[in-house]
Amino acid sequence: MIDFDRTRIDAMDKRYRAALINSLTGFKSANLVGTSDELGQTNLALISSAIHVGSAPPLIGHLMRPHTVPRHTLENILSTGEYTLNAVNQVMVEPAHASSARFSREVSEFDATGLSAQFGTTLSAPYVAESPLQVGLRLVEHHMLQSNGCVMVIGEIVELRLSEDVRADDGHLDLVALDLVAISGLDEYLTPSSLGRRSYAKAPRS
Amino acid sequence: MIDFDRTRIDAMDKRYRAALINSLTGFKSANLVGTSDELGQTNLALISSAIHVGSAPPLIGHLMRPHTVPRHTLENILSTGEYTLNAVNQVMVEPAHASSARFSREVSEFDATGLSAQFGTTLSAPYVAESPLQVGLRLVEHHMLQSNGCVMVIGEIVELRLSEDVRADDGHLDLVALDLVAISGLDEYLTPSSLGRRSYAKAPRS
Repeated sequence: MIDFDRTRIDAMDKRYRAALINSLTGFKSANLVGTSDELGQTNLALISSAIHVGSAPPLIGHLMRPHTVPRHTLENILSTGEYTLNAVNQVMVEPAHASSARFSREVSEFDATGLSAQFGTTLSAPYVAESPLQVGLRLVEHHMLQSNGCVMVIGEIVELRLSEDVRADDGHLDLVALDLVAISGLDEYLTPSSLGRRSYAKAPRS
Repeated sequence: MIDFDRTRIDAMDKRYRAALINSLTGFKSANLVGTSDELGQTNLALISSAIHVGSAPPLIGHLMRPHTVPRHTLENILSTGEYTLNAVNQVMVEPAHASSARFSREVSEFDATGLSAQFGTTLSAPYVAESPLQVGLRLVEHHMLQSNGCVMVIGEIVELRLSEDVRADDGHLDLVALDLVAISGLDEYLTPSSLGRRSYAKAPRS
């Protein structure tokens, strides 16, 4: 084993440490958060921190870094209480990655990247038309982390839009059929192949 | 687009909805959380919710569901303040999945699954010897979600152990070389192939 203690980690160059630490959590989902402000100006932010929180009620969480790029997105979520989560497939990788650049407030990442805003009937937040898996959310709670000021956002699912029906008989979605990508570290994109599903794990009777 | 509104989601069978909603966040990381209680009894819990929180200080978050399987793990994290995160590679899929069964408190998932506990010098929590990427953490804060009682746990990295040096020149780890797997939904395991890294996204000058 190669062992890095905390002293060695803290002594690393800032960018080197960021690339390394961002790699430690394993493969991550790639999602674009769509919002609009109270004047209808749209915004997009690429995130790799979406997590399942619960299914009854249906809840999804994600982390936002207030001091970096998706600042407008967090402000929009907090002020309007609405946002969308749009899964990134292989065709969307280049524009999705480009959306992570630091655009000024008056620039919509939709215009800057060529992705298309699409509005449903339920929310004022825009969906990404190109995404094969789109989730509409209403903010239910948020928690600011004392450690570094990041904000954990929890939203309740109000709408779900699928480009094609990839549901198995039991509700499981075939994300490979949707051609979704994963992210590793800060900037690597990957396409997963299935090793199959496993049956529900049970402890042996004693 | 196939459109599911909230009424339709709420009307679904409970297990069907759980499988569907668990699929919505995209590909997820597979990690085993290693803990021990104050008497030294070890525990393992499979999680798919690890997220990057920050790199200076180095922080990782994950969600725990207090009312389901990893209950002992959450109790151990809160009482000892220490835990490990161990990435799951392809060889570990069967024992890692088996660890998600509902074992009684006196059973260690290490014994039940055949995975090996390994202790470092810094923490009392056990690492999983088979894992090629092991992170030692100290609890720094936790947040109970009002929505459903889940607990968001934030830990500070105190140690990092790698089975082989898969660092790129800039600190990025090659997780494919470590043969790590991803999870989709409740029970699908996947092996990702790289589409390459992208350069840092910059907004065009106006």
